[in-house]
Amino acid sequence: MTTPLRLGIAGLGTVGAGVVRIVQRHADLLEARSGRPVEIVAVTARTKGRDRGVRLSQYEWEDDPVALARRDDIDVFVELMGGATGTPKEAVEAAIAAGKDVVTANKALLALHGQDLAEAAEANDAVIRFEAAVAGGIPVVKALTEGLAGNEVTRVMGVMNGTCNYILTRMQAAGLTYQEVFAEAEALGYLEADPELDVGGIDAGHKLALLASIAFGTRVDFDAMSLEGIGKVSIADIEQAADMGFRIKLLGVAQMSGRGLETRMSPCLVPAASPLGQLENAMNMVVLEGDAVGQIVLQGAGAGEGPTASAVMADIIDLARGTRLSTFGQPAAALKPATPAAVSTPAPFYLRMALQDRPGALAKIAAVLGDEGISIDRMRQYGHVDPAAPVLIVTHRTTRDALDSAIAAMERTGVLAGEPVAIRIEDV
Amino acid sequence: MTTPLRLGIAGLGTVGAGVVRIVQRHADLLEARSGRPVEIVAVTARTKGRDRGVRLSQYEWEDDPVALARRDDIDVFVELMGGATGTPKEAVEAAIAAGKDVVTANKALLALHGQDLAEAAEANDAVIRFEAAVAGGIPVVKALTEGLAGNEVTRVMGVMNGTCNYILTRMQAAGLTYQEVFAEAEALGYLEADPELDVGGIDAGHKLALLASIAFGTRVDFDAMSLEGIGKVSIADIEQAADMGFRIKLLGVAQMSGRGLETRMSPCLVPAASPLGQLENAMNMVVLEGDAVGQIVLQGAGAGEGPTASAVMADIIDLARGTRLSTFGQPAAALKPATPAAVSTPAPFYLRMALQDRPGALAKIAAVLGDEGISIDRMRQYGHVDPAAPVLIVTHRTTRDALDSAIAAMERTGVLAGEPVAIRIEDV
Repeated sequence: MTTPLRLGIAGLGTVGAGVVRIVQRHADLLEARSGRPVEIVAVTARTKGRDRGVRLSQYEWEDDPVALARRDDIDVFVELMGGATGTPKEAVEAAIAAGKDVVTANKALLALHGQDLAEAAEANDAVIRFEAAVAGGIPVVKALTEGLAGNEVTRVMGVMNGTCNYILTRMQAAGLTYQEVFAEAEALGYLEADPELDVGGIDAGHKLALLASIAFGTRVDFDAMSLEGIGKVSIADIEQAADMGFRIKLLGVAQMSGRGLETRMSPCLVPAASPLGQLENAMNMVVLEGDAVGQIVLQGAGAGEGPTASAVMADIIDLARGTRLSTFGQPAAALKPATPAAVSTPAPFYLRMALQDRPGALAKIAAVLGDEGISIDRMRQYGHVDPAAPVLIVTHRTTRDALDSAIAAMERTGVLAGEPVAIRIEDV
Repeated sequence: MTTPLRLGIAGLGTVGAGVVRIVQRHADLLEARSGRPVEIVAVTARTKGRDRGVRLSQYEWEDDPVALARRDDIDVFVELMGGATGTPKEAVEAAIAAGKDVVTANKALLALHGQDLAEAAEANDAVIRFEAAVAGGIPVVKALTEGLAGNEVTRVMGVMNGTCNYILTRMQAAGLTYQEVFAEAEALGYLEADPELDVGGIDAGHKLALLASIAFGTRVDFDAMSLEGIGKVSIADIEQAADMGFRIKLLGVAQMSGRGLETRMSPCLVPAASPLGQLENAMNMVVLEGDAVGQIVLQGAGAGEGPTASAVMADIIDLARGTRLSTFGQPAAALKPATPAAVSTPAPFYLRMALQDRPGALAKIAAVLGDEGISIDRMRQYGHVDPAAPVLIVTHRTTRDALDSAIAAMERTGVLAGEPVAIRIEDV
């Protein structure tokens, strides 16, 4: 094959400009590795003529992404606009309808409409690839879809939003509150236009939903995910968790069991000495577990021009080399609707509570836990000095239901001073 | 494609039996992911009839691997015998000559004969895949060949021999000598029949040579590698390196610079807090660096039935899905002979030496380093208590040549008590 692979690129922000830069800078390398030239034919973006630090004048300009997607002279529509509705969605649909392959970094679009798009792609003999949609430069979609294809996947975990990990590690390092670090991150331009996409766990949740589909052969089901952001994580919990050998991470977990498919994106405690516990700043990490391979850990930059453009290029070169895979690793029709697990897998929990300064308060709490069948692994009481100081408890493995019952019962005892905090400890 | 992909498996040791087990246990999963059934047609091994914990009677048995490789009714020859010469090599050559695709875990064969085999494969429209040859279950060949295909790779590093990492971490944890832990590892069956393959760095060196070829588009050149095993690593160095915040690892490094291609497999110091520094026991880790992606870290089990069989299956499923890549990521004819770097990249070094107990000894050593233009980053002298106790020096970045000159000059001063130890500190 020496005919070039012809690209139409929609979206010339950081990532789009990064892709253009790689295609221009590494033309020879890409041709050597692909076996054919990789060429940009046409581009589009919201604003024409803005200086993006790359030369674009040699490419055709389209004002309309949908028109770009349908051009006869492109083989691959590279969608780097972002957004789950409106023009990006219409353009991807138009590309597929025209039998074009699609490479996208759009996690929201695929998390919400992945099944329909995958079905449409297969009906039109088109391929959709989305390595850049999950964990930036880490080739995790490839590792899971191809590298672990011989495994029954048992669990997928990950820290997949660099901004949240930055906020949590910065809170710990500097002893600052969530609000203080959030303001810093906002000033530094680290947050999405709608910050809730980051700190609410939605962006990371979209990524987890995509990995879960590949891992378990199920239809993407973002709505079934249990989703909790980092807004309620306190510096007290970060520090006290650290004191007990843990770190708090916004952790995504997808696992399949007899209970069904469990997908959670929420703050969790992980051992400080584990790879996930040691992940600092804006890095991403994904942990894949399979029945044959055991545990694989992948770490890298989850965002930024270079890493994300690297992932986009990997998909483009796959297509140039003639690699053609189903969107989620199996034909779309074979993907089963996921049965969400009604209850989550039992786990140890971290509990922090303040007690009234009265005799027997702690004994009452311990008794309540015992009544619910929850045994205590470790307990720390700092209250000898300061009566408002907390009691920390690490439980043995229990269900969230039992824990919630215990917390309700604790509240009825009248010995609590304020609402207890309960955070899951993920066994990583 | 609903025609089955038909396998002939040569070698039914741990890995071969593991592959048979996956094909039998996950037939439905493999078919769903491959789009076609994956079937074993025929097998061979040194001894027929041995109980391998899997049912083999439904497959054709061949006594001769070469005959198996040539069978008309197989599509893929799965070579899991190991060994760079004799029958395994002949069988792979026969499979290629017959136009069969080859999946192998044989790092020695490819490190020594990869170029010839890749050329033969391309001439016969056959594909050679070898994910299982490097770092067991970690899909690193795929990550480098495909996931980072849009990058100019700048450096590849790795701990790729689990036995060596086990020995080094066990020495540190238990305060045992190399000889003591070597004997333990031998008793536990952790070592190859020829232990020098492990502890001499040869096995890991074969893996690094393969990754270097992919990373830099060069012909595999194992002979150009600078190779040093772990046999001379002392518990004193492990403990004193730890005291200064380092770990000693058998680290492979491949990097391309204006000096040429540098491939080294040798004990190195790495920061204790780095991912490589934290790698314990028999785990493997590979670090990939590219101009766009930055640094990617991949961790997992580097050996064992499940992980290695997982990697073999990934290659098989790629072939079943119709993915067809050049052996080293580019057509064999395009691979350039590597120009080995005449001198290695400058680095900081760790120096341990014992000095004569006489006034001015340390000053002489410092003066000698200064004369060679080597500046001292940190120094520790333990000799106030015990005159035989060592002096430890961490230098700033310098060349190995300057360091060797300095060591020779130190020896001429007459203040050394014994031969100094110098270990490179890799900037990870």
